[in-house]
Amino acid sequence: MTGFHLNLSLLTPWHFRQAWRLPHVDPLAHLDIGHFRRLAQAAEDAKIDAVFLGDGPALGAGIEHAPDTGLDPLILLAHLSGSTEHRGFVITSSTAYNSPYNLARRFNALDHVSKGRAAVNIVTTGTPAAAANFGLDDHPDKPTRYRRAHEFLDVVTRLWDAWEPGAVVADRTSGTYADPKRIRTIDHHGEFFSVRGPLPVPAGPQGRPVIVQAGGSEGGLRLAGDFADVVFTVAQTQPKAVAFRDDIRRRATAAGRHPDDVKVSLGVVVLVSETEEEARRRERELYETLPLEKLVAAVVTSLGLPAGRFGPDDVITTDALPEAPAEGAFSAGFNASTRALIAERPRTPRELVHRSAGGAGHRLLVGSATQVADDLESWFRGGTADGFTIMPADTAVDFENFTRLVVPILQARGLFQTEYTAATLRERLRLPQPRHPRAAARRDHRAHRLTEVATPATPSSPSGRTRKEA
Amino acid sequence: MTGFHLNLSLLTPWHFRQAWRLPHVDPLAHLDIGHFRRLAQAAEDAKIDAVFLGDGPALGAGIEHAPDTGLDPLILLAHLSGSTEHRGFVITSSTAYNSPYNLARRFNALDHVSKGRAAVNIVTTGTPAAAANFGLDDHPDKPTRYRRAHEFLDVVTRLWDAWEPGAVVADRTSGTYADPKRIRTIDHHGEFFSVRGPLPVPAGPQGRPVIVQAGGSEGGLRLAGDFADVVFTVAQTQPKAVAFRDDIRRRATAAGRHPDDVKVSLGVVVLVSETEEEARRRERELYETLPLEKLVAAVVTSLGLPAGRFGPDDVITTDALPEAPAEGAFSAGFNASTRALIAERPRTPRELVHRSAGGAGHRLLVGSATQVADDLESWFRGGTADGFTIMPADTAVDFENFTRLVVPILQARGLFQTEYTAATLRERLRLPQPRHPRAAARRDHRAHRLTEVATPATPSSPSGRTRKEA
Repeated sequence: MTGFHLNLSLLTPWHFRQAWRLPHVDPLAHLDIGHFRRLAQAAEDAKIDAVFLGDGPALGAGIEHAPDTGLDPLILLAHLSGSTEHRGFVITSSTAYNSPYNLARRFNALDHVSKGRAAVNIVTTGTPAAAANFGLDDHPDKPTRYRRAHEFLDVVTRLWDAWEPGAVVADRTSGTYADPKRIRTIDHHGEFFSVRGPLPVPAGPQGRPVIVQAGGSEGGLRLAGDFADVVFTVAQTQPKAVAFRDDIRRRATAAGRHPDDVKVSLGVVVLVSETEEEARRRERELYETLPLEKLVAAVVTSLGLPAGRFGPDDVITTDALPEAPAEGAFSAGFNASTRALIAERPRTPRELVHRSAGGAGHRLLVGSATQVADDLESWFRGGTADGFTIMPADTAVDFENFTRLVVPILQARGLFQTEYTAATLRERLRLPQPRHPRAAARRDHRAHRLTEVATPATPSSPSGRTRKEA
Repeated sequence: MTGFHLNLSLLTPWHFRQAWRLPHVDPLAHLDIGHFRRLAQAAEDAKIDAVFLGDGPALGAGIEHAPDTGLDPLILLAHLSGSTEHRGFVITSSTAYNSPYNLARRFNALDHVSKGRAAVNIVTTGTPAAAANFGLDDHPDKPTRYRRAHEFLDVVTRLWDAWEPGAVVADRTSGTYADPKRIRTIDHHGEFFSVRGPLPVPAGPQGRPVIVQAGGSEGGLRLAGDFADVVFTVAQTQPKAVAFRDDIRRRATAAGRHPDDVKVSLGVVVLVSETEEEARRRERELYETLPLEKLVAAVVTSLGLPAGRFGPDDVITTDALPEAPAEGAFSAGFNASTRALIAERPRTPRELVHRSAGGAGHRLLVGSATQVADDLESWFRGGTADGFTIMPADTAVDFENFTRLVVPILQARGLFQTEYTAATLRERLRLPQPRHPRAAARRDHRAHRLTEVATPATPSSPSGRTRKEA
């Protein structure tokens, strides 16, 4: 059996932000590198494929009640890469508030220093709080953000491809260090960016760092079909997840890629203990920290309904829902996922809050280690995903409980790897070194006017940019 | 005796870029994390204060003959911070091609994860190659770049100061996590940036990461006087160095700071072996890798003279020099340093190239370990600097030779530390936690309209932002 990749979120605290009030939780854990080192080591011991950090470059609302976004994930994970050997790193970066040259160069560097373990999770960042930290009065609308993200990834991937393998000659006798004809400028002039390139150094072990994409809107899905190696998504029901995965695979095919070259990683919030009883006790404890009224209002408005219209225990049916997802909804993916849950059968706001780990949107999975393993196996065999992004419900407990209790069961069932064998994250995920067809076409188109600086790429070129790991 | 700080450059290869042709040099060392780990460990074993990486975000000219700028230093050093405990990191970052919010946040994160070892070396980046990677047709002129840098550091330092110590309350009983009145927005609207702030998390162990400044133009010196904890500079003669240090101390005083709160770190390219004879042999070997004609032309034009006017062995006198440094000269500091050398006595271009490590500008110091230690001691006792930024002539040899051969002599003479005692880099350099007077004044001025979100800072406020480490 192939697949069943596991990606573990280090985000601290997250879905249950008020968990800092529990006696066993360190309220400053999100600033404590020792905390993250322990989690990273637990992940490596369990042969987890990658660890993951979400992000948003701003202080959000509610700091009086709970910690918010934490340390910059690029720095935190680059630092952690210095103390482990195998595990990959999925680092969330915004296409709205980074420049493509800096981002391409930084992930190139991370790929070199980590020996092929770097992955970037591309997000477009839609919050006004972030916009205000970067000189914008309001955040750009979603279509603009995704047009920018698309151009951004086009530039970034071409920068990553700019040094042909073998461009460095290093001939001591003649004194030739590199062949400049095999190091391309990209000479990009688009709607959002003008970038000459190339990067100062050749590509790292992966060629291109792994590209993860997480947005569920039409723009996000187009981006995924064209560029993503891994799509990180949300689903509350198996049919919804299967349909999503089929859609992504179709989009990849339409973009000239093999459908297996895009992996779907399904987000699940996991709360796991030795026994179901203990897991349920901890679930109650966590829910007691949450401000239920606010969360009910949030889930109701996120569906495009008036906040006051439904109390915690009023039933919401599909008839009550507006036809389209709310205009400008923060996340199209979360919205579709919650609607699918109501389509399955009518639900109360309280139930929706509980099913989605306090209203965060992702499915909450509670149980003993065997129950959690059974559930993940069932979803995997149901064709919902190529793997899971596990978000520990209580980071202080569930990250280590998952690696210590659940992973050995998945390994014993032959679902999950027991050793790290592949050299790079890209190989471990069975991803090819993609050659983006549009980028290749553009190079061909431009070849005649780049003869001074580049060798034209042709479709038959045996360049190592294509399926380097195949 | 206080002072005598040592900062070691990891830049590979640099002053003798063509050294990759020597049989003992790995032409791909600048991409090899193992190479940097060995150097970092050697630095830690020798109790070096900090390691340093210069940078420029572009591929420069000449890749056919030698490697250029290397891996992104932020990532490389963040990674290396994961495998050592004590040594500081001086990371060059451009104010032209970064946003202040991202930079402030990333160095805040690095300070947390490295437990107080982060330093940023602020440069304004004046190359057209870099400009073309960031959407600019040409790079901004020097006064504009320094106005931007000044506003940049004003924003960054205020972001670093935005959480008052004690803002996080974490009272489990009441559920109060932080006091929002003690977390300031900065609401900056300037010529170059609009930034609301604050950062999502409190300051790290240093309060503010250490600020290093390296530009020698008037704009650079003003920046240094207002903001720098450490000024990295160049001098070929002791009188020039003493005059520079006096000037910097005067500027700090004029900005309301104590002159001892700005340290001067003098750049020296070191080529050291067990014996002088062996060092001289290696010096000849390195010079044989260099294209002398090009370097002679470069040093002549850098002085504002026509390239063809002076052959390698023609004598240049002060009378031949134009009155002011060449307009738009890449580096005012390097220019002044070379002029001081000619003022001492007439020099030939060949001599200038040799004295400045192949025309790089910094003084080349060649000799046995004792000779190198004698020289550094003489310059230190001459009041030229508070310490040195050592640039190994041949990174493959001189970094480890310096730490293994020279440092023990400096330690035996009581000049250099034999143990790491201070907890943070800032403490080790005997720097206070500065409170920038202008920033403080601005806060006072704005206090009345920030009452919704901030407690006004008053000059008598016992806020830990001031001299936290004193």
